[in-house]
Amino acid sequence: MMERLKRQIDFIVEVDKLKSIFRQSLIANTTRFENDAEHSWHLALMAFLLAEHTDEKVDLLKVMKMVLMHDIVEMDAGDTYCYDEKARQDKREREEKCAERIFSMLPEEQAREMFALWEEFELMETPEARYAAVLDRLQPLLLNYTAQGISWKNHGISVEQVLERNQIVQGSSEKLWRFVKDLLDDAVARGYLKQDNQNP
Amino acid sequence: MMERLKRQIDFIVEVDKLKSIFRQSLIANTTRFENDAEHSWHLALMAFLLAEHTDEKVDLLKVMKMVLMHDIVEMDAGDTYCYDEKARQDKREREEKCAERIFSMLPEEQAREMFALWEEFELMETPEARYAAVLDRLQPLLLNYTAQGISWKNHGISVEQVLERNQIVQGSSEKLWRFVKDLLDDAVARGYLKQDNQNP
Repeated sequence: MMERLKRQIDFIVEVDKLKSIFRQSLIANTTRFENDAEHSWHLALMAFLLAEHTDEKVDLLKVMKMVLMHDIVEMDAGDTYCYDEKARQDKREREEKCAERIFSMLPEEQAREMFALWEEFELMETPEARYAAVLDRLQPLLLNYTAQGISWKNHGISVEQVLERNQIVQGSSEKLWRFVKDLLDDAVARGYLKQDNQNP
Repeated sequence: MMERLKRQIDFIVEVDKLKSIFRQSLIANTTRFENDAEHSWHLALMAFLLAEHTDEKVDLLKVMKMVLMHDIVEMDAGDTYCYDEKARQDKREREEKCAERIFSMLPEEQAREMFALWEEFELMETPEARYAAVLDRLQPLLLNYTAQGISWKNHGISVEQVLERNQIVQGSSEKLWRFVKDLLDDAVARGYLKQDNQNP
């Protein structure tokens, strides 16, 4: 039984590396990029604060597990910028290799649970996975807006690209979708985000 | 109803500041100090991976909410080093002021839930609060051990001090307590931690 605990502890120490995987979003005070561990914490906190707004019934504990672990697969593979189409092509392969290595550090049935949670998150076919995806879209949107769109501008991102990436919100929460559209309208009005027809 | 969502969103953006509150523990690769957001993420992940080892039945969702939010009160007050007796004296007062300001940004019943979770965590009188406290002790211990005791050495911490701070583990999980004692014996043997009688 101590052998089982040892495997869990080794995994817990190993995933500390997620604190050194940096994303493309700045933290709200714009002093540096956000890392995956901080991002995952923020999503889990949002999960229970915003749960009332989903139009589908969700198992909140499952959503929280999902958002806490969903980026662990980036530990070896690195963060893939959501608007980088080229890097997204072999994303799955890189992440699967990482999942195989890291999840199998755990006792077998926990490794299976981790794989299953990750698969479910990626497929976005259950209410829990959709809600997790909504949080995963909404959080960087809030940070980018608060940072006056620095990251959007640096990457030349348009409101049309952001809207497309946030389509999933519409399927999970009518209210959050209205919020997202209002926020993006405002971001365009403030010059944080360009419109495609502005730069033909 | 959009007003209610707006309050929640403002809170979610405000707590981003937790990513800039640094602790005394280094992350495992020892390149920098850990911040409260990363620490809270790590605890929440540990909460579900180690839940089988508690001797008391716990409501896991509640534990996860607790560890995700327990350090928010440090946002204005700063992190108080657990072995700094002087700073610990007015810790409660500083944190209460912060809790008042930040939690009251939320809709009333969510603010009440946050206050209640924080109070419960601080009192350590329920199985959930005890398990959350165990995680809050165990995580820096794992990081300090992995970092070969740099932080313990810098602060002249003895194994007796660490054992005293970790007493709560004994009341929650016999198995984790055995693990902690073995780890500390090993830390002393490796010279990561001094014994009080070594430096009289």
